[in-house]
Amino acid sequence: MEFPKENFSEWYQEVLESAELVDNRYPVKGMLVWRPNGFKIRKYVTDLLRELLEETGHQEVLFPTLIPETALNKEGEHIRGFGSEVYWITHGGETPLDVKLALRPTSETAMYPMFALWIRSHADLPLRVFQIVSVFRYETKHTRPLIRVREVSTFKEAHCALKTEEEAEKEMRIIDGVYKAFWDELGIPFVRVQRPSWDKFAGADKTIAYDTIMPTGRTLQIATSHRLSQKFSEVFDVKYEDENGEQKLAYLTSHGISERAIAALVGIHGDNRGLVLPPRFAPVQVVIVPILYKGKENQVMEKAMEVYEKLKYNWRVELDDSDSNPGDKFYYWELRGVPIRIEIGPRDVENGVVTLARRDTKEKTQVKMEELEDKINRLAEEIHNNIAKRARDEFLSKVVTARSIDEIKDADNKPGIIKAPLCENWEECGKAVQDQINKEFRGIDLDDAPDGEKCVVCGKPAKYYGIWSNAY
Amino acid sequence: MEFPKENFSEWYQEVLESAELVDNRYPVKGMLVWRPNGFKIRKYVTDLLRELLEETGHQEVLFPTLIPETALNKEGEHIRGFGSEVYWITHGGETPLDVKLALRPTSETAMYPMFALWIRSHADLPLRVFQIVSVFRYETKHTRPLIRVREVSTFKEAHCALKTEEEAEKEMRIIDGVYKAFWDELGIPFVRVQRPSWDKFAGADKTIAYDTIMPTGRTLQIATSHRLSQKFSEVFDVKYEDENGEQKLAYLTSHGISERAIAALVGIHGDNRGLVLPPRFAPVQVVIVPILYKGKENQVMEKAMEVYEKLKYNWRVELDDSDSNPGDKFYYWELRGVPIRIEIGPRDVENGVVTLARRDTKEKTQVKMEELEDKINRLAEEIHNNIAKRARDEFLSKVVTARSIDEIKDADNKPGIIKAPLCENWEECGKAVQDQINKEFRGIDLDDAPDGEKCVVCGKPAKYYGIWSNAY
Repeated sequence: MEFPKENFSEWYQEVLESAELVDNRYPVKGMLVWRPNGFKIRKYVTDLLRELLEETGHQEVLFPTLIPETALNKEGEHIRGFGSEVYWITHGGETPLDVKLALRPTSETAMYPMFALWIRSHADLPLRVFQIVSVFRYETKHTRPLIRVREVSTFKEAHCALKTEEEAEKEMRIIDGVYKAFWDELGIPFVRVQRPSWDKFAGADKTIAYDTIMPTGRTLQIATSHRLSQKFSEVFDVKYEDENGEQKLAYLTSHGISERAIAALVGIHGDNRGLVLPPRFAPVQVVIVPILYKGKENQVMEKAMEVYEKLKYNWRVELDDSDSNPGDKFYYWELRGVPIRIEIGPRDVENGVVTLARRDTKEKTQVKMEELEDKINRLAEEIHNNIAKRARDEFLSKVVTARSIDEIKDADNKPGIIKAPLCENWEECGKAVQDQINKEFRGIDLDDAPDGEKCVVCGKPAKYYGIWSNAY
Repeated sequence: MEFPKENFSEWYQEVLESAELVDNRYPVKGMLVWRPNGFKIRKYVTDLLRELLEETGHQEVLFPTLIPETALNKEGEHIRGFGSEVYWITHGGETPLDVKLALRPTSETAMYPMFALWIRSHADLPLRVFQIVSVFRYETKHTRPLIRVREVSTFKEAHCALKTEEEAEKEMRIIDGVYKAFWDELGIPFVRVQRPSWDKFAGADKTIAYDTIMPTGRTLQIATSHRLSQKFSEVFDVKYEDENGEQKLAYLTSHGISERAIAALVGIHGDNRGLVLPPRFAPVQVVIVPILYKGKENQVMEKAMEVYEKLKYNWRVELDDSDSNPGDKFYYWELRGVPIRIEIGPRDVENGVVTLARRDTKEKTQVKMEELEDKINRLAEEIHNNIAKRARDEFLSKVVTARSIDEIKDADNKPGIIKAPLCENWEECGKAVQDQINKEFRGIDLDDAPDGEKCVVCGKPAKYYGIWSNAY
């Protein structure tokens, strides 16, 4: 069973389905079913996000799925941005509703009326909450599982209310820290980009996005962070009384990550045999496959049980004692991305060893029983690091730094990201480049800056690196 | 701060709001916001349910929120039962949808088309899945937070596909075991009732419901379990190939618990000071309140820190070092239902003791520092048992067993449940009683049976105890 990854789109659909992560045959376009195996990965991913957000003082809440039309329409830019994608509920049973209800496309307009009730004084700030919920977008573009869907069923949205612009900026950096830690654990490389004004979140003052590169070379936006300033607090009356008794508008920020995290995990790490999962996110972390020979079954099964008992407290371990032959079992668990396989045959039993096979490199090593647990601990870390490094190398190989329009044009037909110096006036010059190539201007890299270079468009001193790519 | 529980409806709204569990001011009727404190309780409750279901081999999945009209309408009884309560989505942006989409009122008609794809042979059965999601009902009755809502945001629905009727019956018993364990942990007493045919789940062959009694004396249905037999499998073509190569229809069951679990937890255990929580479900299990006197602040705070450090690994513990006075702190944490309070004053420090106050009985005891952890372990268990026993006693005091129509009529104006013997023909005789009283016939008690008694209506030998009550 091979899944040729060169043909990524097919590979992706095949692997999602064969590894039983999701089922895309649900009879509503762009909405899919999370099967048990996929749900577990989703859970480990959201657990990590919860943990990181709670560590930084964000509290989990749950808001209704529906937003009254009146609230959704309150902020002009916001509704202009989302209006054409909103699902509208018009009837309860046969009864027409007084006010149409929208399935939330995102929850700013659901949350901020409540923030206005909760916040009285400066002592109530900062207010930091998050929820992990479904949001809905009536996508007119081609849908694709976990990447472009109509029900985003794993939307983590954090929303913060702060006293000052400086605190809002600080909050943006706190979330950067959370997101960096999150993507590092997933082993997903990214470039952190400030979007140009025409590509901001509807209603935001500034949008930072995290883009990774999928195997096709197209970028995938995997996280966003928006400084909303006081626009929403004005229309929803989110005010606090400051230390001097004055009423002031709060500054708001919002921050999102969706199931694209899992699309990236699947798409970037996987190989021709299927999923490759960092151990932390693997539903099964260690699988034990007994290699049975006639007359030696008992010895081998006994040893397999012993290994299982030894490992089960610290690892999600499975002993595959089904009737399939070892080769089929290998394929089955490889497809599912189990990081470590333990093979135990009669000779291993005699020699007091077991064989460990790594999913990421396919390397096999023999290890003495007494060293098994140590070795697995080390191996799990090595596997994580190797997967992350491999992804990083692959990512870097798809970033071309260009120093002139000609170099940009040369790189235009290569898959991946073009990076080139831009002046202070980066929106205009970035757009001017876009107009001459097939890739789209995504914004400026926030983690790297040119030194002594010149803008590829106007020749003025460069201040930023612009980023161009084709995006999902 | 006192919340007189005699006036239960007001008490309930007050406590939900003051303890910051939920906010009922969200601008859509019957939909509310879970605030951080309430969300935590919700999480401990759903975690327990997950744990119990996973132990019995049920796997978590996630299905879309929307069901196409065509699928929802497929089973006649089902749509007749839910049709008038369904929220309909008719538009995506400005575009009318080809097929109207329903916000799921429950997921049978979403899941079973997928079951039909997943199930091929008898080896694929039993199939046992569950999800914890929002379901939506356009309630025309008076809404009430967590009890009767339009977005049920904590709906655990388990769905099982089985080979035979016997296996379906066995599954019903497995779920009974899960539910019993669940309600025992919550300390919520119940009566397990088979509903009469006119009060079954729409499309079910048999419905078992769990009813508890709220402080008003009205019963609250807190769990359901439905044997759906082959009705849904027929319309959705859920078939398997049996051992002999024959195609057979699967037997289906479904099982639900909602946020009414939390309504019961709040309403049944709470007292005039607010929430009383079993330790397992308390966001804060132990609160430390230092009693500061001038000149002794450092000693006391040091000891308080020491206690905090000692307990934090095994308990969710909070050290309240705010500026409020101890009395206000006591009220604050009592309102939130913190099971154990530790008070530390200068004299306690001198004597090497701390004072423990129980939330449930308000008793205080002094305990030596070296015995603190042991004592807290024991106390937590005692508190759980005491709360559960108190609820059980209260429940039993509200059940009247009547042996004649006259006795039933006497009990009719008392709050709570009337229980009386009925013959084999229980639906008809139970209904005949209902026609003469104000309470409603809920069905028959599945965990108790009369011995040598006579049906209160027809005088034939009694086989069941009927249950009558006013229900939420």
